[in-house]
Amino acid sequence: MSPRVFVANRGEIAVRIIEACQRLGLETVLGVSTADRATLGARRADRVVTLGGPRPTDSYLSIPTVVQAAVSTGCGLLHPGYGFLSERAELAEACAENGVVFVGPGPEALRALGDKLAARDLAESVGVPVSPGGRARGPAEVERLAELIGYPVLVKAAHGGGGRGMKRVHDPADLHEAWRVASAEAQAAFGDGTVFLERFVEDAKHVEVQVLGDRHGNVVHLGERECSVQFRYQKVVEESPCAALPAPTRALLHASAVRIAQALDYVGLGTVEFLYDVDRDELAFLEVNPRIQVEHPVTEAVTGVDLVREQLLVAMGEPLSFTQSEVRVTGHAVEARITAQDPENRLAPSPGTVRRWRPSAAGGLRLDSHIYEGYQFPPFYDALMAKQIAWGPDRAAAVDRLAEGLARFEIAGLTTSLPLLRRIVAEPAYRQNTVTTRWLDQLLTAAGAAPQPQEVR
Amino acid sequence: MSPRVFVANRGEIAVRIIEACQRLGLETVLGVSTADRATLGARRADRVVTLGGPRPTDSYLSIPTVVQAAVSTGCGLLHPGYGFLSERAELAEACAENGVVFVGPGPEALRALGDKLAARDLAESVGVPVSPGGRARGPAEVERLAELIGYPVLVKAAHGGGGRGMKRVHDPADLHEAWRVASAEAQAAFGDGTVFLERFVEDAKHVEVQVLGDRHGNVVHLGERECSVQFRYQKVVEESPCAALPAPTRALLHASAVRIAQALDYVGLGTVEFLYDVDRDELAFLEVNPRIQVEHPVTEAVTGVDLVREQLLVAMGEPLSFTQSEVRVTGHAVEARITAQDPENRLAPSPGTVRRWRPSAAGGLRLDSHIYEGYQFPPFYDALMAKQIAWGPDRAAAVDRLAEGLARFEIAGLTTSLPLLRRIVAEPAYRQNTVTTRWLDQLLTAAGAAPQPQEVR
Repeated sequence: MSPRVFVANRGEIAVRIIEACQRLGLETVLGVSTADRATLGARRADRVVTLGGPRPTDSYLSIPTVVQAAVSTGCGLLHPGYGFLSERAELAEACAENGVVFVGPGPEALRALGDKLAARDLAESVGVPVSPGGRARGPAEVERLAELIGYPVLVKAAHGGGGRGMKRVHDPADLHEAWRVASAEAQAAFGDGTVFLERFVEDAKHVEVQVLGDRHGNVVHLGERECSVQFRYQKVVEESPCAALPAPTRALLHASAVRIAQALDYVGLGTVEFLYDVDRDELAFLEVNPRIQVEHPVTEAVTGVDLVREQLLVAMGEPLSFTQSEVRVTGHAVEARITAQDPENRLAPSPGTVRRWRPSAAGGLRLDSHIYEGYQFPPFYDALMAKQIAWGPDRAAAVDRLAEGLARFEIAGLTTSLPLLRRIVAEPAYRQNTVTTRWLDQLLTAAGAAPQPQEVR
Repeated sequence: MSPRVFVANRGEIAVRIIEACQRLGLETVLGVSTADRATLGARRADRVVTLGGPRPTDSYLSIPTVVQAAVSTGCGLLHPGYGFLSERAELAEACAENGVVFVGPGPEALRALGDKLAARDLAESVGVPVSPGGRARGPAEVERLAELIGYPVLVKAAHGGGGRGMKRVHDPADLHEAWRVASAEAQAAFGDGTVFLERFVEDAKHVEVQVLGDRHGNVVHLGERECSVQFRYQKVVEESPCAALPAPTRALLHASAVRIAQALDYVGLGTVEFLYDVDRDELAFLEVNPRIQVEHPVTEAVTGVDLVREQLLVAMGEPLSFTQSEVRVTGHAVEARITAQDPENRLAPSPGTVRRWRPSAAGGLRLDSHIYEGYQFPPFYDALMAKQIAWGPDRAAAVDRLAEGLARFEIAGLTTSLPLLRRIVAEPAYRQNTVTTRWLDQLLTAAGAAPQPQEVR
């Protein structure tokens, strides 16, 4: 295998992957759209090739273009990052057919996990807690199941990705219409109209476990993250560990995640997501993300493990370099996503030119970013500008340090989420860690920056 | 006491002090020269007052001006930083006379430590190892003592500061002339011509112990630092701990430093400096620096203690918040001083405008700096632009991380020591930690960038 890596992504994660490759002595080729030729990633990669125009479908979402670029530049591996094609079984297949090692699980695992209903069944079959719910055939069965679960219920598309194809139903009178619309939407968006029912948990924390498997049958977890601070189902602030978990629940959470990964013969880095109902002390499996997550640095900060490096080594066939008992979680880490979005205007995108970019470089802080002064932030992609990560010996110290880093961060030229992030880390509910996934939406609604009515996740 | 702090310094340490004050909820007033009104410190302080013109004697070195500024702005404390007036007993006295708490030891301790011969005598009296040497009266006694010590010897001024007033003598024929010149220089520079003799240790590591004492009789140490990478007696790269020390020697080093601090009833933060002869496994006391050191962040990185915060708390009369047994050294930290100096031209100063300033913000890195893009680096003060600090679980990991941080640091607009620092951290002798205080001078001489002949330390 050629020790050259094709980086099939952009933004901060492209920079992150390139740095991990360089640490391992691996050459990198970055595929860019015509809008991304002046990014930091393009400066850092050993070689840059243009994939196509700025529209994602012309570049980062085109499987033939990406694979062709990797093959023609002699790359032995392809790292898909997150988003874009990262969870597409077709990309993993196309890589395999062209002799390129896909940095991630195989096509079968990606297919199995892309079907949320199948993933739920798998979790249930290995004794992992799931929300009450399941599939239903015909209107009568749907009604009976919903009554059994208890309202509000969630109608979910089996092939919904990133939370799309989801309907919340509070009133039994709306059930059939929600079922029909969700199914039609899912059919249109994902080519499969299968939907199923689950209890809608109103007040829960989002917790997730980082798992890692190699080609030699080893699976470990690297502790959990909490990502309850979300705006319209988009994570905004994340942390590791989840301080709200009682020890027995944490042990159950970790064991559940590892059991699922083992049942899948999982190879690579993955995240097993759960909802945690604090009042009932109950976990419910959500889904598995078979790729690196945006929030992976908080896990790196508390474990000292370079997750992208591990991804690359596992893809190259190496056995894990550590055992479960060698994984130690030390202190606490928090991440805030700085985006080019307007907190005063429902976090609407706000591209433009970055005229000032002065992060704090104090100890205990880490910034993952592709931005520099003078960078033209393009309107074609997601709004993420940087991830500010803070580590501290305990949660309060980590949050203090994050707050200080955010307070000192100077950005000018475009509107960003920085003021909102500063506010979040100062909120008593956040400080006391009582927030659930609805907290930020409610906070912003109360403040007049009402999210528009939106039922689709 | 008014909880308002006068910051009597400039550059990165002014920013550092201001941040520590803000964390404690203390207001800050920064005194600046007319050349320093646009510094980062001036932006961060709650209030800024102008001390005088750009020349240090008109501003940062004028005791009446500094004290008057502190009094007239209602400051209850004064932090002197390092350099400038930080070791001057007269400043501590003037503060006391004006009801301002000097953040540092009292005038008596500053006087005792300003006399290197007295400090050496004190160290000897409490059983701390010193180099063979001492005072001598008259030419015959000087000669006998030099023969006893063995050449090369060092003629040192008792009141030399920062290494000035020092002569190295290899040939007995040069002894009397060196003695005369050193004494005359010391008389002219420090108003006291007392000189003494010490063995010149040719190949030694510079090690130093961080000590901290409170007003309640408690003294602790916070481990040691190694600062052997020096260019003409200026520290360039520092680290903590010193990996070359055998455990019994380290224990002796720490105990010696604490014994000296206890003998002085030391209050505040101080550094006890030693030379360590690796071949003989021998320590020799050098001097005590009664102030914060430039290289203090490496100690902070491995102990988790905010040293400036501790300085302020001790000055406010608080007892130490931790005991010796609670001090834990975790991992390894390295610091590189980035200066506006030309490595191709004997590190000559190179002021100018900072056109690009893009530090790496990766995890495990910390940057202490007052620089930003567009900053006009003034020619009036020392050349320090930034301190890049890296922490890692062990020395190799910390140095790797520092190397990566230096490699990714982009600076344009003026010549800096960055290329030299990148080279140092890649040198086998540095990697293997075999360097002594003469190593860098020899490296640069061998490379053609010969330091000019210079005997005065």
